[in-house]
Amino acid sequence: MRRSLALARLGRYLGVVRDPSLSNVPAWRPLETREAMRCRVFSVRAALQREDPVPGEPQKEGEFYVIDAPDWVNVVALTEADELLLIEQWRHGVEHTTLEIPGGMVDPGETPLEAARRELLEETGYRATSWAPLGCVEPNPAIQSNRCHTFVALGCARVGAPRFDGNERIHLHPTPYTEVPPMLARGRITHALVVAALAFEALRRAGALAAAPAAC
Amino acid sequence: MRRSLALARLGRYLGVVRDPSLSNVPAWRPLETREAMRCRVFSVRAALQREDPVPGEPQKEGEFYVIDAPDWVNVVALTEADELLLIEQWRHGVEHTTLEIPGGMVDPGETPLEAARRELLEETGYRATSWAPLGCVEPNPAIQSNRCHTFVALGCARVGAPRFDGNERIHLHPTPYTEVPPMLARGRITHALVVAALAFEALRRAGALAAAPAAC
Repeated sequence: MRRSLALARLGRYLGVVRDPSLSNVPAWRPLETREAMRCRVFSVRAALQREDPVPGEPQKEGEFYVIDAPDWVNVVALTEADELLLIEQWRHGVEHTTLEIPGGMVDPGETPLEAARRELLEETGYRATSWAPLGCVEPNPAIQSNRCHTFVALGCARVGAPRFDGNERIHLHPTPYTEVPPMLARGRITHALVVAALAFEALRRAGALAAAPAAC
Repeated sequence: MRRSLALARLGRYLGVVRDPSLSNVPAWRPLETREAMRCRVFSVRAALQREDPVPGEPQKEGEFYVIDAPDWVNVVALTEADELLLIEQWRHGVEHTTLEIPGGMVDPGETPLEAARRELLEETGYRATSWAPLGCVEPNPAIQSNRCHTFVALGCARVGAPRFDGNERIHLHPTPYTEVPPMLARGRITHALVVAALAFEALRRAGALAAAPAAC
Protein backbone atom coordinates (compact mmCIF):
# COMPACT_ATOMS: atom_id res chain seq x y z
CA MET A 1 0.00 0.00 0.00
CA ARG A 2 3.10 2.24 -0.03
CA ARG A 3 3.35 4.54 -3.03
CA SER A 4 5.70 7.28 -4.00
CA LEU A 5 5.28 10.10 -1.57
CA ALA A 6 5.64 12.67 -4.34
CA LEU A 7 2.76 11.13 -6.29
CA ALA A 8 0.64 10.88 -3.16
CA ARG A 9 1.28 14.52 -2.31
CA LEU A 10 0.54 15.65 -5.83
CA GLY A 11 -2.73 13.76 -5.79
CA ARG A 12 -3.62 15.09 -2.37
CA TYR A 13 -2.95 18.70 -3.27
CA LEU A 14 -4.83 18.44 -6.53
CA GLY A 15 -7.69 16.80 -4.66
CA VAL A 16 -8.12 14.24 -7.42
CA VAL A 17 -6.86 11.06 -5.79
CA ARG A 18 -9.84 8.77 -5.33
CA ASP A 19 -8.05 5.45 -5.74
CA PRO A 20 -7.50 4.10 -2.25
CA SER A 21 -4.31 2.40 -3.42
CA LEU A 22 -2.71 5.85 -3.30
CA SER A 23 -1.71 7.42 -0.05
CA ASN A 24 -3.87 10.42 0.74
CA VAL A 25 -2.42 11.08 4.16
CA PRO A 26 1.15 12.14 4.94
CA ALA A 27 3.69 9.66 6.29
CA TRP A 28 5.43 9.87 9.66
CA ARG A 29 9.18 9.36 10.15
CA PRO A 30 10.90 8.01 13.27
CA LEU A 31 13.24 10.41 15.05
CA GLU A 32 14.25 8.36 18.09
CA THR A 33 13.37 4.91 19.34
CA ARG A 34 13.85 3.14 22.67
CA GLU A 35 12.79 -0.26 23.96
CA ALA A 36 10.17 0.11 26.69
CA MET A 37 9.91 -3.57 27.67
CA ARG A 38 10.60 -7.06 26.38
CA CYS A 39 9.29 -10.54 27.13
CA ARG A 40 9.50 -13.91 25.38
CA VAL A 41 6.53 -13.28 23.10
CA PHE A 42 6.77 -9.58 22.24
CA SER A 43 8.57 -6.33 23.00
CA VAL A 44 7.37 -2.73 23.14
CA ARG A 45 9.19 0.13 21.44
CA ALA A 46 8.59 3.83 22.12
CA ALA A 47 9.19 5.86 18.97
CA LEU A 48 9.30 9.62 18.71
CA GLN A 49 7.95 10.40 15.25
CA ARG A 50 7.36 13.45 13.05
CA GLU A 51 4.76 13.85 10.33
CA ASP A 52 5.88 14.90 6.87
CA PRO A 53 5.25 18.64 6.34
CA VAL A 54 1.79 19.77 5.26
CA PRO A 55 1.77 23.30 3.79
CA GLY A 56 0.05 25.82 6.02
CA GLU A 57 -0.02 23.54 9.06
CA PRO A 58 2.33 23.24 12.03
CA GLN A 59 4.38 20.04 11.74
CA LYS A 60 3.19 17.32 14.11
CA GLU A 61 5.36 15.23 16.43
CA GLY A 62 4.41 12.56 18.88
CA GLU A 63 5.58 9.51 20.80
CA PHE A 64 3.99 6.24 19.70
CA TYR A 65 4.31 2.83 21.33
CA VAL A 66 4.60 -0.17 19.03
CA ILE A 67 4.40 -3.86 19.96
CA ASP A 68 6.96 -5.90 18.00
CA ALA A 69 6.69 -9.68 17.66
CA PRO A 70 7.71 -12.30 15.13
CA ASP A 71 5.20 -12.86 12.34
CA TRP A 72 2.47 -15.35 13.22
CA VAL A 73 0.79 -18.11 11.21
CA ASN A 74 -2.70 -19.61 11.29
CA VAL A 75 -3.81 -22.85 9.67
CA VAL A 76 -7.30 -23.64 8.37
CA ALA A 77 -6.75 -27.42 8.60
CA LEU A 78 -9.38 -29.62 6.96
CA THR A 79 -9.70 -33.39 6.89
CA GLU A 80 -10.88 -35.44 3.90
CA ALA A 81 -14.31 -35.48 5.60
CA ASP A 82 -14.25 -31.63 5.60
CA GLU A 83 -13.81 -31.36 9.33
CA LEU A 84 -12.03 -28.24 10.60
CA LEU A 85 -9.38 -28.91 13.25
CA LEU A 86 -10.34 -26.61 16.10
CA ILE A 87 -8.18 -26.55 19.21
CA GLU A 88 -9.15 -25.59 22.71
CA GLN A 89 -6.56 -24.11 25.05
CA TRP A 90 -6.31 -21.85 28.07
CA ARG A 91 -5.52 -18.30 27.04
CA HIS A 92 -3.77 -16.12 29.59
CA GLY A 93 -4.84 -12.84 27.99
CA VAL A 94 -8.57 -13.42 28.45
CA GLU A 95 -8.30 -15.96 31.31
CA HIS A 96 -10.56 -18.57 29.77
CA THR A 97 -10.33 -21.31 27.18
CA THR A 98 -10.86 -20.45 23.53
CA LEU A 99 -11.62 -22.40 20.37
CA GLU A 100 -9.02 -21.53 17.76
CA ILE A 101 -7.24 -22.99 14.78
CA PRO A 102 -3.64 -24.23 14.97
CA GLY A 103 -0.97 -21.57 14.67
CA GLY A 104 1.87 -19.79 16.35
CA MET A 105 5.02 -17.79 15.87
CA VAL A 106 7.31 -18.04 12.86
CA ASP A 107 10.67 -19.15 14.30
CA PRO A 108 13.94 -17.56 13.15
CA GLY A 109 15.03 -19.04 9.81
CA GLU A 110 11.58 -20.46 9.03
CA THR A 111 9.30 -19.42 6.20
CA PRO A 112 5.67 -18.84 7.19
CA LEU A 113 4.69 -22.08 5.40
CA GLU A 114 7.32 -24.06 7.32
CA ALA A 115 6.04 -22.58 10.57
CA ALA A 116 2.47 -23.47 9.59
CA ARG A 117 3.44 -27.11 8.86
CA ARG A 118 5.34 -27.35 12.14
CA GLU A 119 2.59 -25.80 14.26
CA LEU A 120 -0.09 -28.03 12.74
CA LEU A 121 1.97 -31.15 13.48
CA GLU A 122 3.02 -30.05 16.99
CA GLU A 123 -0.41 -28.88 18.10
CA THR A 124 -2.56 -31.61 16.55
CA GLY A 125 -0.37 -34.50 15.35
CA TYR A 126 -1.91 -34.03 11.88
CA ARG A 127 -0.24 -33.61 8.49
CA ALA A 128 -1.83 -32.25 5.30
CA THR A 129 -1.52 -33.50 1.73
CA SER A 130 -1.66 -30.01 0.22
CA TRP A 131 -1.13 -26.44 1.35
CA ALA A 132 -2.08 -23.06 -0.10
CA PRO A 133 -1.84 -19.47 1.16
CA LEU A 134 -5.22 -17.93 2.07
CA GLY A 135 -4.14 -14.41 2.89
CA CYS A 136 -2.23 -12.22 5.25
CA VAL A 137 -3.47 -9.81 7.91
CA GLU A 138 -1.94 -7.22 10.17
CA PRO A 139 -3.10 -8.12 13.70
CA ASN A 140 -3.32 -4.45 14.70
CA PRO A 141 -1.67 -1.92 12.36
CA ALA A 142 -2.13 0.89 14.90
CA ILE A 143 0.06 -0.63 17.60
CA GLN A 144 1.65 -3.82 16.23
CA SER A 145 4.27 -4.19 13.51
CA ASN A 146 3.90 -7.87 12.69
CA ARG A 147 1.73 -9.87 10.28
CA CYS A 148 -0.23 -13.10 10.48
CA HIS A 149 -0.03 -15.43 7.48
CA THR A 150 -2.97 -17.76 6.94
CA PHE A 151 -2.82 -21.07 5.10
CA VAL A 152 -5.34 -23.73 4.20
CA ALA A 153 -4.13 -27.30 4.77
CA LEU A 154 -6.18 -29.92 2.92
CA GLY A 155 -6.41 -33.68 3.36
CA CYS A 156 -5.29 -33.52 6.99
CA ALA A 157 -4.83 -36.87 8.72
CA ARG A 158 -3.39 -37.87 12.08
CA VAL A 159 0.15 -39.17 11.88
CA GLY A 160 1.06 -39.22 15.57
CA ALA A 161 0.56 -37.62 18.95
CA PRO A 162 0.78 -33.86 19.34
CA ARG A 163 3.92 -32.47 21.01
CA PHE A 164 3.15 -29.51 23.21
CA ASP A 165 5.52 -26.73 24.25
CA GLY A 166 6.31 -26.32 27.95
CA ASN A 167 3.06 -24.78 29.17
CA GLU A 168 0.86 -25.75 26.24
CA ARG A 169 -2.07 -28.11 26.76
CA ILE A 170 -4.38 -28.47 23.80
CA HIS A 171 -7.64 -30.33 23.30
CA LEU A 172 -8.48 -31.12 19.68
CA HIS A 173 -12.04 -30.70 18.34
CA PRO A 174 -12.42 -31.86 14.74
CA THR A 175 -15.62 -30.04 13.74
CA PRO A 176 -17.69 -30.43 10.55
CA TYR A 177 -17.02 -27.30 8.50
CA THR A 178 -20.76 -26.76 8.05
CA GLU A 179 -20.97 -26.02 11.78
CA VAL A 180 -18.33 -23.30 11.61
CA PRO A 181 -20.31 -20.31 10.25
CA PRO A 182 -23.06 -20.85 12.87
CA MET A 183 -20.33 -21.01 15.54
CA LEU A 184 -18.99 -17.65 14.34
CA ALA A 185 -22.49 -16.20 14.33
CA ARG A 186 -23.14 -17.41 17.88
CA GLY A 187 -19.85 -16.04 19.23
CA ARG A 188 -18.32 -19.48 19.89
CA ILE A 189 -15.16 -18.57 17.98
CA THR A 190 -13.97 -15.17 19.17
CA HIS A 191 -10.25 -14.92 18.35
CA ALA A 192 -10.08 -12.09 15.80
CA LEU A 193 -7.22 -13.69 13.86
CA VAL A 194 -9.19 -16.93 13.63
CA VAL A 195 -12.33 -15.11 12.49
CA ALA A 196 -10.19 -13.39 9.83
CA ALA A 197 -8.71 -16.74 8.72
CA LEU A 198 -12.20 -18.22 8.43
CA ALA A 199 -13.29 -15.18 6.40
CA PHE A 200 -10.54 -16.03 3.88
CA GLU A 201 -11.64 -19.67 3.88
CA ALA A 202 -15.23 -18.57 3.14
CA LEU A 203 -13.91 -16.51 0.20
CA ARG A 204 -11.92 -19.54 -1.03
CA ARG A 205 -15.03 -21.73 -0.93
CA ALA A 206 -16.98 -19.05 -2.79
CA GLY A 207 -14.30 -19.08 -5.51
CA ALA A 208 -13.56 -15.46 -4.68
CA LEU A 209 -9.91 -15.78 -3.66
CA ALA A 210 -7.27 -14.71 -6.14
CA ALA A 211 -5.07 -17.56 -7.40
CA ALA A 212 -2.24 -16.06 -5.36
CA PRO A 213 -3.62 -14.03 -2.47
CA ALA A 214 -1.68 -10.84 -1.91
CA ALA A 215 0.92 -10.83 0.82
CA CYS A 216 0.74 -7.92 3.24
CA MET B 1 -17.19 -19.96 27.24
CA ARG B 2 -16.52 -20.28 30.97
CA ARG B 3 -18.19 -23.28 32.60
CA SER B 4 -18.14 -24.76 36.03
CA LEU B 5 -14.66 -26.05 36.73
CA ALA B 6 -16.04 -29.08 38.55
CA LEU B 7 -18.12 -30.10 35.55
CA ALA B 8 -15.20 -29.55 33.21
CA ARG B 9 -12.90 -31.65 35.37
CA LEU B 10 -15.48 -34.41 35.68
CA GLY B 11 -15.88 -34.50 31.91
CA ARG B 12 -12.15 -34.40 31.38
CA TYR B 13 -11.42 -37.27 33.74
CA LEU B 14 -14.25 -39.37 32.36
CA GLY B 15 -12.97 -38.62 28.86
CA VAL B 16 -16.50 -38.10 27.64
CA VAL B 17 -16.61 -34.35 27.07
CA ARG B 18 -16.89 -33.77 23.32
CA ASP B 19 -18.87 -30.54 23.43
CA PRO B 20 -16.44 -27.72 22.86
CA SER B 21 -18.56 -25.46 25.04
CA LEU B 22 -17.12 -27.34 28.01
CA SER B 23 -13.61 -26.71 29.22
CA ASN B 24 -11.35 -29.66 28.53
CA VAL B 25 -8.17 -28.03 29.70
CA PRO B 26 -7.39 -26.90 33.24
CA ALA B 27 -7.53 -23.24 34.23
CA TRP B 28 -4.64 -21.13 35.46
CA ARG B 29 -4.83 -18.82 38.49
CA PRO B 30 -2.86 -15.62 39.06
CA LEU B 31 -0.44 -15.64 42.00
CA GLU B 32 1.24 -12.25 41.61
CA THR B 33 0.90 -9.41 39.16
CA ARG B 34 3.02 -6.35 38.39
CA GLU B 35 2.74 -3.61 35.79
CA ALA B 36 5.61 -3.86 33.29
CA MET B 37 4.86 -0.69 31.31
CA ARG B 38 2.09 1.77 30.53
CA CYS B 39 1.32 4.21 27.74
CA ARG B 40 -1.75 6.13 26.63
CA VAL B 41 -3.21 3.31 24.56
CA PHE B 42 -2.34 0.16 26.52
CA SER B 43 -0.39 -1.23 29.46
CA VAL B 44 1.47 -4.49 29.97
CA ARG B 45 1.06 -6.66 33.05
CA ALA B 46 3.39 -9.50 34.08
CA ALA B 47 1.42 -12.20 35.89
CA LEU B 48 2.87 -15.18 37.70
CA GLN B 49 0.28 -17.93 37.25
CA ARG B 50 -0.25 -21.52 38.37
CA GLU B 51 -2.21 -24.22 36.55
CA ASP B 52 -4.94 -26.08 38.41
CA PRO B 53 -3.68 -29.48 39.59
CA VAL B 54 -3.75 -32.39 37.13
CA PRO B 55 -3.49 -35.79 38.87
CA GLY B 56 -0.19 -37.53 38.19
CA GLU B 57 1.51 -34.43 36.77
CA PRO B 58 3.76 -31.83 38.37
CA GLN B 59 1.86 -28.56 38.78
CA LYS B 60 2.87 -25.92 36.24
CA GLU B 61 3.77 -22.30 36.97
CA GLY B 62 4.85 -19.57 34.63
CA GLU B 63 5.06 -15.82 34.11
CA PHE B 64 2.79 -14.49 31.37
CA TYR B 65 2.68 -10.98 29.93
CA VAL B 66 -0.73 -9.54 29.14
CA ILE B 67 -1.55 -6.37 27.21
CA ASP B 68 -4.47 -4.50 28.80
CA ALA B 69 -6.43 -1.86 26.94
CA PRO B 70 -9.97 -0.47 26.98
CA ASP B 71 -12.43 -2.40 24.84
CA TRP B 72 -12.48 -1.29 21.22
CA VAL B 73 -15.33 -0.78 18.73
CA ASN B 74 -15.55 -1.16 14.97
CA VAL B 75 -18.33 0.13 12.73
CA VAL B 76 -19.47 -1.39 9.43
CA ALA B 77 -21.03 1.88 8.22
CA LEU B 78 -23.20 1.69 5.10
CA THR B 79 -24.90 4.45 3.14
CA GLU B 80 -28.35 4.19 1.53
CA ALA B 81 -26.51 3.42 -1.72
CA ASP B 82 -24.79 0.48 0.03
CA GLU B 83 -21.41 2.12 0.12
CA LEU B 84 -19.08 1.06 2.92
CA LEU B 85 -17.30 3.92 4.66
CA LEU B 86 -13.62 2.99 4.50
CA ILE B 87 -11.06 5.27 6.06
CA GLU B 88 -7.42 5.65 5.22
CA GLN B 89 -4.96 6.70 7.88
CA TRP B 90 -1.29 6.42 8.75
CA ARG B 91 -0.69 3.55 11.15
CA HIS B 92 2.36 3.77 13.36
CA GLY B 93 2.54 0.03 14.06
CA VAL B 94 3.06 -0.97 10.43
CA GLU B 95 4.43 2.38 9.20
CA HIS B 96 2.16 2.73 6.22
CA THR B 97 -1.41 3.79 5.53
CA THR B 98 -4.23 1.27 5.88
CA LEU B 99 -7.81 1.03 4.72
CA GLU B 100 -10.00 0.37 7.72
CA ILE B 101 -13.50 0.98 9.02
CA PRO B 102 -14.26 3.64 11.63
CA GLY B 103 -13.62 2.62 15.22
CA GLY B 104 -11.63 3.27 18.34
CA MET B 105 -11.50 2.93 22.09
CA VAL B 106 -14.52 2.81 24.36
CA ASP B 107 -14.08 5.80 26.68
CA PRO B 108 -14.74 5.51 30.43
CA GLY B 109 -18.48 5.65 31.14
CA GLU B 110 -19.43 4.89 27.54
CA THR B 111 -21.26 1.81 26.31
CA PRO B 112 -19.73 0.17 23.23
CA LEU B 113 -22.67 1.43 21.13
CA GLU B 114 -22.14 5.01 22.36
CA ALA B 115 -18.44 4.72 21.48
CA ALA B 116 -19.34 3.38 18.03
CA ARG B 117 -21.72 6.32 17.37
CA ARG B 118 -19.12 8.82 18.58
CA GLU B 119 -16.25 7.33 16.55
CA LEU B 120 -18.32 7.19 13.36
CA LEU B 121 -19.27 10.85 13.72
CA GLU B 122 -15.77 12.02 14.71
CA GLU B 123 -13.89 10.08 12.06
CA THR B 124 -16.27 10.55 9.11
CA GLY B 125 -18.86 13.24 9.93
CA TYR B 126 -21.58 10.66 9.17
CA ARG B 127 -24.57 9.55 11.25
CA ALA B 128 -26.62 6.37 10.84
CA THR B 129 -30.39 5.91 10.96
CA SER B 130 -30.15 2.46 12.60
CA TRP B 131 -27.62 0.43 14.51
CA ALA B 132 -27.29 -3.27 15.32
CA PRO B 133 -24.59 -5.39 16.98
CA LEU B 134 -22.75 -7.70 14.57
CA GLY B 135 -20.55 -9.58 16.99
CA CYS B 136 -17.66 -9.36 19.37
CA VAL B 137 -14.11 -10.61 19.02
CA GLU B 138 -11.10 -10.93 21.27
CA PRO B 139 -8.24 -9.20 19.42
CA ASN B 140 -5.66 -11.71 20.71
CA PRO B 141 -6.79 -13.96 23.59
CA ALA B 142 -3.23 -15.22 24.12
CA ILE B 143 -1.74 -11.86 25.08
CA GLN B 144 -4.55 -9.28 25.23
CA SER B 145 -7.40 -9.03 27.72
CA ASN B 146 -9.74 -6.71 25.86
CA ARG B 147 -12.55 -7.18 23.35
CA CYS B 148 -13.62 -5.47 20.15
CA HIS B 149 -17.35 -4.90 19.63
CA THR B 150 -18.56 -4.64 16.07
CA PHE B 151 -21.70 -2.83 14.94
CA VAL B 152 -23.44 -2.30 11.64
CA ALA B 153 -24.64 1.27 11.05
CA LEU B 154 -27.24 1.56 8.30
CA GLY B 155 -28.50 4.56 6.37
CA CYS B 156 -25.35 6.56 7.00
CA ALA B 157 -25.35 10.14 5.71
CA ARG B 158 -22.97 13.05 6.13
CA VAL B 159 -24.10 15.56 8.74
CA GLY B 160 -20.94 17.63 9.06
CA ALA B 161 -17.17 17.68 8.92
CA PRO B 162 -15.14 15.04 10.76
CA ARG B 163 -13.39 16.10 13.96
CA PHE B 164 -10.02 14.44 14.33
CA ASP B 165 -8.11 13.80 17.54
CA GLY B 166 -4.70 15.48 17.99
CA ASN B 167 -2.60 13.38 15.64
CA GLU B 168 -5.40 11.85 13.59
CA ARG B 169 -5.68 12.59 9.89
CA ILE B 170 -8.25 10.52 8.03
CA HIS B 171 -9.19 10.28 4.38
CA LEU B 172 -12.67 8.90 3.70
CA HIS B 173 -13.28 6.39 0.88
CA PRO B 174 -16.98 5.52 0.47
CA THR B 175 -16.71 2.23 -1.44
CA PRO B 176 -19.50 0.19 -3.06
CA TYR B 177 -20.00 -2.85 -0.84
CA THR B 178 -19.76 -5.16 -3.87
CA GLU B 179 -16.10 -4.16 -4.17
CA VAL B 180 -15.29 -5.16 -0.59
CA PRO B 181 -14.96 -8.98 -0.88
CA PRO B 182 -12.58 -8.61 -3.86
CA MET B 183 -10.56 -6.08 -1.83
CA LEU B 184 -10.26 -8.63 0.99
CA ALA B 185 -9.26 -11.34 -1.47
CA ARG B 186 -6.59 -9.10 -3.01
CA GLY B 187 -5.12 -8.09 0.35
CA ARG B 188 -6.23 -4.45 0.09
CA ILE B 189 -7.85 -4.59 3.55
CA THR B 190 -5.38 -6.16 5.96
CA HIS B 191 -6.40 -5.05 9.48
CA ALA B 192 -7.41 -8.31 11.20
CA LEU B 193 -10.16 -6.64 13.27
CA VAL B 194 -11.61 -5.10 10.11
CA VAL B 195 -11.47 -8.44 8.26
CA ALA B 196 -13.29 -9.99 11.24
CA ALA B 197 -15.93 -7.23 11.20
CA LEU B 198 -16.49 -7.76 7.48
CA ALA B 199 -16.82 -11.52 8.11
CA PHE B 200 -19.72 -10.74 10.47
CA GLU B 201 -21.24 -8.43 7.88
CA ALA B 202 -21.03 -11.21 5.27
CA LEU B 203 -22.85 -13.51 7.71
CA ARG B 204 -25.51 -10.83 8.27
CA ARG B 205 -26.07 -10.46 4.53
CA ALA B 206 -26.33 -14.26 4.22
CA GLY B 207 -29.05 -14.24 6.89
CA ALA B 208 -26.75 -16.34 9.08
CA LEU B 209 -26.39 -14.00 12.05
CA ALA B 210 -28.38 -14.73 15.17
CA ALA B 211 -30.99 -12.10 15.99
CA ALA B 212 -28.81 -11.09 18.93
CA PRO B 213 -25.18 -12.01 18.25
CA ALA B 214 -23.47 -13.37 21.33
CA ALA B 215 -21.29 -11.01 23.32
CA CYS B 216 -17.81 -12.26 24.15
